[in-house]
Amino acid sequence: METSALQSGAQATHEKPSIGLIGLAVMGENLALNIANHGFPISVYNRTAAKTQELAEGRARGKALYPTFTMEEFVASMERPRKIIILVKAGAPVDAVIDQLKPLLEKDDVIIDGGNSLFTDTEKRSGEIEALGLRFVGMGVSGGEEGALKGPSLMPGGPKTAYDDLAPILTQIAAQVDDGPCVTYIGPRGAGHYVKMVHNGIEYGDMQLIAEAYDLLRQTLGLGAAELHDIFAEWNAGELKSFLIEITADIFTKIDPETGKPLVDLILDKAGQKGTGKWTSQNAYDLGIPIPTINAAVESRILSAYKSERVAASKILSGPERPPFTGEKKQFIDAVRDALYCAKICSYAQGMALLKAASHEYDYHLNLSELARIWKGGCIIRAIFLDKIKNAFLRDPALTNLLIDSEFSGDIQARQANWRYAVQTAAQLGIPAYATGASLAYYDAYRTAQLPLNLTQAQRDYFGAHTYERIDKEGVFHTEWFS
Amino acid sequence: METSALQSGAQATHEKPSIGLIGLAVMGENLALNIANHGFPISVYNRTAAKTQELAEGRARGKALYPTFTMEEFVASMERPRKIIILVKAGAPVDAVIDQLKPLLEKDDVIIDGGNSLFTDTEKRSGEIEALGLRFVGMGVSGGEEGALKGPSLMPGGPKTAYDDLAPILTQIAAQVDDGPCVTYIGPRGAGHYVKMVHNGIEYGDMQLIAEAYDLLRQTLGLGAAELHDIFAEWNAGELKSFLIEITADIFTKIDPETGKPLVDLILDKAGQKGTGKWTSQNAYDLGIPIPTINAAVESRILSAYKSERVAASKILSGPERPPFTGEKKQFIDAVRDALYCAKICSYAQGMALLKAASHEYDYHLNLSELARIWKGGCIIRAIFLDKIKNAFLRDPALTNLLIDSEFSGDIQARQANWRYAVQTAAQLGIPAYATGASLAYYDAYRTAQLPLNLTQAQRDYFGAHTYERIDKEGVFHTEWFS
Repeated sequence: METSALQSGAQATHEKPSIGLIGLAVMGENLALNIANHGFPISVYNRTAAKTQELAEGRARGKALYPTFTMEEFVASMERPRKIIILVKAGAPVDAVIDQLKPLLEKDDVIIDGGNSLFTDTEKRSGEIEALGLRFVGMGVSGGEEGALKGPSLMPGGPKTAYDDLAPILTQIAAQVDDGPCVTYIGPRGAGHYVKMVHNGIEYGDMQLIAEAYDLLRQTLGLGAAELHDIFAEWNAGELKSFLIEITADIFTKIDPETGKPLVDLILDKAGQKGTGKWTSQNAYDLGIPIPTINAAVESRILSAYKSERVAASKILSGPERPPFTGEKKQFIDAVRDALYCAKICSYAQGMALLKAASHEYDYHLNLSELARIWKGGCIIRAIFLDKIKNAFLRDPALTNLLIDSEFSGDIQARQANWRYAVQTAAQLGIPAYATGASLAYYDAYRTAQLPLNLTQAQRDYFGAHTYERIDKEGVFHTEWFS
Repeated sequence: METSALQSGAQATHEKPSIGLIGLAVMGENLALNIANHGFPISVYNRTAAKTQELAEGRARGKALYPTFTMEEFVASMERPRKIIILVKAGAPVDAVIDQLKPLLEKDDVIIDGGNSLFTDTEKRSGEIEALGLRFVGMGVSGGEEGALKGPSLMPGGPKTAYDDLAPILTQIAAQVDDGPCVTYIGPRGAGHYVKMVHNGIEYGDMQLIAEAYDLLRQTLGLGAAELHDIFAEWNAGELKSFLIEITADIFTKIDPETGKPLVDLILDKAGQKGTGKWTSQNAYDLGIPIPTINAAVESRILSAYKSERVAASKILSGPERPPFTGEKKQFIDAVRDALYCAKICSYAQGMALLKAASHEYDYHLNLSELARIWKGGCIIRAIFLDKIKNAFLRDPALTNLLIDSEFSGDIQARQANWRYAVQTAAQLGIPAYATGASLAYYDAYRTAQLPLNLTQAQRDYFGAHTYERIDKEGVFHTEWFS
């Protein structure tokens, strides 16, 4: 039988693929190449045939990557049980592809949604697809385009048997770190997409905290790109060492060829967002888990988009007087570094607490230590910091909050004076360090045995007879406050 | 025909009611009495007959309040078009009552849901009920039990014809202030419940800001209930004059008879929440409106509920050194007052911005000035402050944000040094003034033409090819950052 596989340039193998990929945008193309590069023949399909052709004749030339041009041809080109990765835009496009696949697939075939689908959509699709005798895996893929090609962090959720069938491939294509490949079985149904969603929320937090550190440094000390590069490069040699700090240092070195200015200074300060950050915030309210750092990050992106309103407001609303900085420069830079590190601990404490609550609420049986481990490589939030988190949950798998782990509590203890100094400086000078400050408020609230919400309860009982509890005896009480 | 109306004690009128109320918990009972007290005969029904009997023979004795004991009897007791207020728990109970009513009602009868229903539920019910030739009104009712009896703030949304039929009653039973009754036609479908939801979000914000002011005063100056009463009573004579400040002053005077201690000091600091605050936060993410003060309030309530975790953490996590306060006491109290006032402006700016966005998104045609006006009396957030908001939107109905109104921007200008001082003190001393600080970050971000999210965009383009815009030319750009 002449299959379209013959249309591929040179063929590295004559094995019939057992894996395929639909959706050849940058992530899909790179992930398909990653799979082929690891010796797994792969069929690909894209709605626009030209894209498929271009890939086959270009970057995939000489690789066991088989272009197909109809869904029927695509499905027929694979051995059973087929493993079909979908990488299309979240939402309706995913359902459209699944609907096309359904009548063509056979028992035990696996559909893998590798996009950023909302986990509740994945829950729904899991049920529908499994009712047909097929298997459905919702898989988070992090690492951007480079990660997809060279080794992403993979978060597959679904039936364990499907994971077992995929594991030989996934463990090869994932990023590899000192303690193994950055992939593990996450849990049933929507668990993989849930974990990816929270990963992205944490990523929002990291990025906002870095932006605020940058803002504090440039606004207070008037630093330019060259000095900022040096600072972030130095930070990347210490406890903050991570992909995001590394690329931040890189970014400050990039000069715009047209103007000769640092490119970062020419970029518009309107940040986009793609859903997962917002979903994390919304879901945390449903689960009753406070994640103020992540929320501040999402809200900061939202506010950034109101550029014209901000420009108009900047002409009307005054800030504080801002005298030239007279403190010790090195001391302030260290304070900003420590603030970033402490706030980052809080952000991860929130994210892990959310995962823990979700694990219970949705019966995901998440292994928090393993999640930290697979985030050590491949993904956007990869950092040496994650090794500490892995170890904290290895020491105590039932740890209620990362903040009370002895290592992290010690880290904050040693740095909190600097953190407070940075937050105070921001408030004094009118620099909006929202996520850094929200993290401090979280820390201070979490370690406070007596919050002032006794007054809130008194008010609620006063105007709405909502009742209250007491500190000195059991029971539920109501008082006639007015008479 | 002998109706159960005869079972009522004395009857003030022989008119057949055209209005009825289902659900005689405290809010329903008080609202029914309010209606009867204004000379409108009213039929009532409650699932538990004993409650109905008790009301008829007790507080309603001598009033034109007609107890009924079956849904059929209830409906038959009223003239057409019937106006039936439902005051039951939001969610399934509302649907259950509506399902019972549907087969009994006739063309143009009006069902009014007076509970705190989620506005999307109201949207759905509106369509279903109107398809039957009936009319549905989702009406926010604020004012707690006292307001329900003596004059609440009412936020009815639905068909304008239904509002017109209800207006003669609603304008009488609502709170009355200098510029009229605290009710107006809010808008179509879920508009009334939407506005009530945001009202509640704002209420959460007000309460949290007051709690933080209280905490700053007690922790920094070591003030007790008597002094706190004096401070809040004094604040209630100025620009902060409001129901919530007034009851706060009251609360500090209440002595627990058993222990002789101020009752507020014996109340457990675990605050409950009932959905509307959370919904406000979640909806704001959907509409892309930052409401950090309100979010901080909701999250603070959530965190307060983790009492045992907090108590455990308080033994592990250290705070900063807290030397005795050596500043000027009067100056600090004034700083806390100004912080509360400025943060309150931010909170309302956020809430009104959310309402404006919702008005556009859901086609509600909200009149923001009118909303501020009807909140001046009856409801929990009533305050002289709302008159200023009303006037700001009268001056400029298209005002994009309350912060840039000349009166409010001037108010903040005059107070921001104090506000910053309070936030700095909280950060320094480890007092979690989350909402007060988030408000300041909002103010500082909103008035900032250049946020640091140019770096965020550079990062997103670096790892995900998300592209960026530039400040110096039109277009969408992507850079190969690594090579």
